[in-house]
Amino acid sequence: MVVVVKKGTNEQQLSHLVDWLRSMNIDVQTSEGQYETVLGLIGDTSRIDMDLISGLDIVDSVTRITEPYKSANRKFHPDDTVIDVCGHKIGDGNLAYIAGPCSVESPAQITSIAKEVKEAGAAFLRGGAFKPRTSPYAFQGMGAEGLRLLETAKKETGMPIVTEIMDLRHLDLFENVDVIQVGARNMQNFELLKELGKTDKPILLKRGLSATMEELLMSAEYIMAGGNSKVMLCERGIRTFEPYTRNTMDISAIALLKEKTHLPIIADPSHAAGISRLVRPLALAAVAAGADGLMIEVHNDPKHALCDGPQALTPPQFAQVVREAEAIKQVMRGNI
Amino acid sequence: MVVVVKKGTNEQQLSHLVDWLRSMNIDVQTSEGQYETVLGLIGDTSRIDMDLISGLDIVDSVTRITEPYKSANRKFHPDDTVIDVCGHKIGDGNLAYIAGPCSVESPAQITSIAKEVKEAGAAFLRGGAFKPRTSPYAFQGMGAEGLRLLETAKKETGMPIVTEIMDLRHLDLFENVDVIQVGARNMQNFELLKELGKTDKPILLKRGLSATMEELLMSAEYIMAGGNSKVMLCERGIRTFEPYTRNTMDISAIALLKEKTHLPIIADPSHAAGISRLVRPLALAAVAAGADGLMIEVHNDPKHALCDGPQALTPPQFAQVVREAEAIKQVMRGNI
Amino acid sequence: MVVVVKKGTNEQQLSHLVDWLRSMNIDVQTSEGQYETVLGLIGDTSRIDMDLISGLDIVDSVTRITEPYKSANRKFHPDDTVIDVCGHKIGDGNLAYIAGPCSVESPAQITSIAKEVKEAGAAFLRGGAFKPRTSPYAFQGMGAEGLRLLETAKKETGMPIVTEIMDLRHLDLFENVDVIQVGARNMQNFELLKELGKTDKPILLKRGLSATMEELLMSAEYIMAGGNSKVMLCERGIRTFEPYTRNTMDISAIALLKEKTHLPIIADPSHAAGISRLVRPLALAAVAAGADGLMIEVHNDPKHALCDGPQALTPPQFAQVVREAEAIKQVMRGNI
Amino acid sequence: MVVVVKKGTNEQQLSHLVDWLRSMNIDVQTSEGQYETVLGLIGDTSRIDMDLISGLDIVDSVTRITEPYKSANRKFHPDDTVIDVCGHKIGDGNLAYIAGPCSVESPAQITSIAKEVKEAGAAFLRGGAFKPRTSPYAFQGMGAEGLRLLETAKKETGMPIVTEIMDLRHLDLFENVDVIQVGARNMQNFELLKELGKTDKPILLKRGLSATMEELLMSAEYIMAGGNSKVMLCERGIRTFEPYTRNTMDISAIALLKEKTHLPIIADPSHAAGISRLVRPLALAAVAAGADGLMIEVHNDPKHALCDGPQALTPPQFAQVVREAEAIKQVMRGNI
Repeated sequence: MVVVVKKGTNEQQLSHLVDWLRSMNIDVQTSEGQYETVLGLIGDTSRIDMDLISGLDIVDSVTRITEPYKSANRKFHPDDTVIDVCGHKIGDGNLAYIAGPCSVESPAQITSIAKEVKEAGAAFLRGGAFKPRTSPYAFQGMGAEGLRLLETAKKETGMPIVTEIMDLRHLDLFENVDVIQVGARNMQNFELLKELGKTDKPILLKRGLSATMEELLMSAEYIMAGGNSKVMLCERGIRTFEPYTRNTMDISAIALLKEKTHLPIIADPSHAAGISRLVRPLALAAVAAGADGLMIEVHNDPKHALCDGPQALTPPQFAQVVREAEAIKQVMRGNI
Repeated sequence: MVVVVKKGTNEQQLSHLVDWLRSMNIDVQTSEGQYETVLGLIGDTSRIDMDLISGLDIVDSVTRITEPYKSANRKFHPDDTVIDVCGHKIGDGNLAYIAGPCSVESPAQITSIAKEVKEAGAAFLRGGAFKPRTSPYAFQGMGAEGLRLLETAKKETGMPIVTEIMDLRHLDLFENVDVIQVGARNMQNFELLKELGKTDKPILLKRGLSATMEELLMSAEYIMAGGNSKVMLCERGIRTFEPYTRNTMDISAIALLKEKTHLPIIADPSHAAGISRLVRPLALAAVAAGADGLMIEVHNDPKHALCDGPQALTPPQFAQVVREAEAIKQVMRGNI
Repeated sequence: MVVVVKKGTNEQQLSHLVDWLRSMNIDVQTSEGQYETVLGLIGDTSRIDMDLISGLDIVDSVTRITEPYKSANRKFHPDDTVIDVCGHKIGDGNLAYIAGPCSVESPAQITSIAKEVKEAGAAFLRGGAFKPRTSPYAFQGMGAEGLRLLETAKKETGMPIVTEIMDLRHLDLFENVDVIQVGARNMQNFELLKELGKTDKPILLKRGLSATMEELLMSAEYIMAGGNSKVMLCERGIRTFEPYTRNTMDISAIALLKEKTHLPIIADPSHAAGISRLVRPLALAAVAAGADGLMIEVHNDPKHALCDGPQALTPPQFAQVVREAEAIKQVMRGNI
Repeated sequence: MVVVVKKGTNEQQLSHLVDWLRSMNIDVQTSEGQYETVLGLIGDTSRIDMDLISGLDIVDSVTRITEPYKSANRKFHPDDTVIDVCGHKIGDGNLAYIAGPCSVESPAQITSIAKEVKEAGAAFLRGGAFKPRTSPYAFQGMGAEGLRLLETAKKETGMPIVTEIMDLRHLDLFENVDVIQVGARNMQNFELLKELGKTDKPILLKRGLSATMEELLMSAEYIMAGGNSKVMLCERGIRTFEPYTRNTMDISAIALLKEKTHLPIIADPSHAAGISRLVRPLALAAVAAGADGLMIEVHNDPKHALCDGPQALTPPQFAQVVREAEAIKQVMRGNI
């Protein structure tokens, strides 16, 4: 960390700052320039509160040189994390497909989609039981009953289930859920993250709408600091000024996160654009950029497409995406 | 709501959509153009899920013409909401000052700051007991003990207290808190909002880092839909590409929200920029833009300024801001 | 276009607005609701100034239903535009590769890179002669001399050249340039666009740092309105809040622009991230998303990599990207 | 500047980098950490190309510690720049008012508005002759004839005129213009900036839609590097995700630029929001934040309000804003 102290700073204030830093086991190297004094902070600066220092009157700027995340940092953990979910691996170099409807609606619906996406190549079944909705007047999901239906579909197909938690009081209900999803809006619900850190469930952590990659990694760090290192990150689009798409998929983040962290990266092309016609190109782009898996909304009932299909593919469309994604993966491996 | 349907759309799909809309008590007016068909939806469209429709293959675009928020909408409730907190009014045309330290640290600290900010003109005491921190390694606040210290300070000064809730399991602990704050990161923690909607506590709802004004109002709507209409909104800066400030205070939002809603608008200039030197100009600008109140961090111990004062003013600085804010308020009223 | 007029609007003001619209050959359909009056504008609204109407006191909101661009709009021109540059086609379904150094530096440098990238599969040679630099103290390019060197390289290799214009007074110097590039910072330099519209040169128009897709298309429209329809669009990353990358490549824009317009879309993965390690994943992602071509910086002199290679690949790295891009293209075509 | 070099970097590459830096008269201090090597660069780093270094394979990150702008930097020029325009001062601690219509339309219109805004307190007359329009189909201004009309209005009222240049070939036409405006879209039209740097005209430089404060200052630096130090900066709103306003006025930028630079800062509340109702609150907020002047659109003909008044005030509304702005200025000076 580098702290630039303003020209003309009172000696006493400066030494107050330096002493305080040293009391935290930080070595401080001072170099005086013509227009400012530069402090180089050496040691474990991950516990230093940057905002606190940058707010001091005598400070011009503070720059972090090393990343504040540790457990999630590839520098300290060079090997890829591979998460085993009921025998299905995520992060082992193959593509993991998580597919299913936006919301769980009925036993027939969820079981039938489960079978279709399994047939098409999906290893994991997704489906919303608790739904985060911008409007209090919109359908909020089937709740606990939806979880029960997912469990039934799992029994029938053997597919592990992935579904979102919205309230930490519901944690007990998620006992049979295989991967717990934290939604974008809860990425910095720190109390929820802490609780999930105490479980041994794999967690799929979605990037917040305006979260930086570093903040996403710090949220992963919250879970990992509690002892649970089975975290996978999910890029699902960020908020920009562009109105033609609901979000802007940050394709660079997929490639760059693979460098910064050893955790698996899943792409969610369904939510990234909010337009079903863009799911295929975004899914394939994500694979080309290095994603470890894809999470895709699939609906199976054309007669009810209206209520089911905003950003969803049909099973045959999903099957095509899987075929193409596998071929692109072969290209990336140099096999084609 | 206006739905543009693509040229060449199958008649059956179109009538399927129109029938479905009519089944929801929406009147649909169709006009065929050369390159598309435009559907005008008339009736209570607040329950229609825009994303769902815009995701349909046959749909080119969907545009909401009327706002999706109702309880918070000034069109339906022209009169200003005035919230009474222990006899102190917010939203009645006067400025409400909420001041205090970033974090509660000790009995002496909180009581002494409380007295100083009261002396300087603050009606409400703020102080963090539960602290949302980006890093799991940073100080997370004193928790329940912090709440107890705030209550003591309230007893000694008579000031109502404002403090943040982070976990709905803590709701019981907030029994003696006068205004419950929902932080920016929890603005779309819908389960928390629903619970707060069941209480009769005044709620200070902070705008999320990348929340639109409409989303902020929809989050207020969540609380109001539960029966609690004592909601005040807080502009605290949004995330942009500008790196010189931590956030960009959206001054237009203060002026525009006063048009869109009848709820009081509080400005938080301390968090908006994250630089104490900018608190005064931003606070005064917020008053000029029409804010109903200011929430400002104040620290009182120059010897500990290091740990307490990132974005905080000293009590004399705060007193100056109050004097100037009152003078600007007089200018706005045409008295100067 | 839909105009929502506020409740309680004076009849005279409303009819003033309606008369004015009709005087512009716009048909106006009025429907009175409980809380507002909605005007449906039918006809050629591309000449209507939305900002002008939305600024009127009586107007609540204005929404454009049809796109304001016409020449660039696929609705009116369903067939793909194919641009022929010295016999090399862009937009015909194959991938066009534009490669070369960031800046032209010397005859040896540019000719030698030209040969290497041609060998690796590039059809077009790029190289900066006039360089847009944020700082006046940075190297501004070789200027006219750089153009001369590009022409020499073209003579030796037969590759058409692509280079950026920064000043419309230089237009004469670009006589032998095959594709004139308009940089992101000049995307809304309307006088430059108008001049280029009078030429018959193919234009590569880069998206501005915070330009919406619609603005990019309107800038293309400026060129096309002048009579020059040989325009290709270039996605090169947009500005967001994310600091880890210089820009955020908007991969959805590539897929969506292919729907909205018939013009070819080129991706520039070198500038999108500003990190050479990300060029390969972003290039391949762009191909998977449907790009018609790639523009990539390549340097050839490892000894001078320092000054030449910020976001550049070496020729062997470029050759690998071409091989993989071609394979992905085959996947997209269903051949693999 | 601090350069972090990756762990495991080849000695030779590192010394190549260090030698190259030293060849540019930069002193390099190296400190080896466990996970990286940190280079501290001391000397005039304003000429070092950050992007170039950050793109090197061996480099993890580059951080500029000192600002890259020099002529515009308050550190090196502590005293406020005061610009004298025909006897009217800008930046001397008083508020400068620049007012007039969006576009010059006729002799009667411009002269009559000029008289009215002068009466209301404006010192400078603004009016667009060349208009930057997103659409090629929109009115592009009266051009040279508009400039002539502005000159006539100046003769009749004695008011110096402020108007926008869009094409450097027009520079001769601007001989009698007192302040040349560079629009937001041309903020990084570097060739134009260089030309203006060779004149001795005061320049009003508007911030680009997504320009950082540093980029704005670097564009000022382009003009100043040419010898023209009469530059004033203009905050006119930045682009964010918020759709309710056309732009988001960056009120913090006004306060912070006053620290960073000695140049005067003008606020443009008319364009910042694009809604006339917000002009007053934003104008007053800008004054409270420390602006040196206001540029405001004023129209004078209610019968033609339709074509003239999107974001414009009437003369009486403008006069009220001037009265209130002056009162707030007195508050800021401690006189009220």
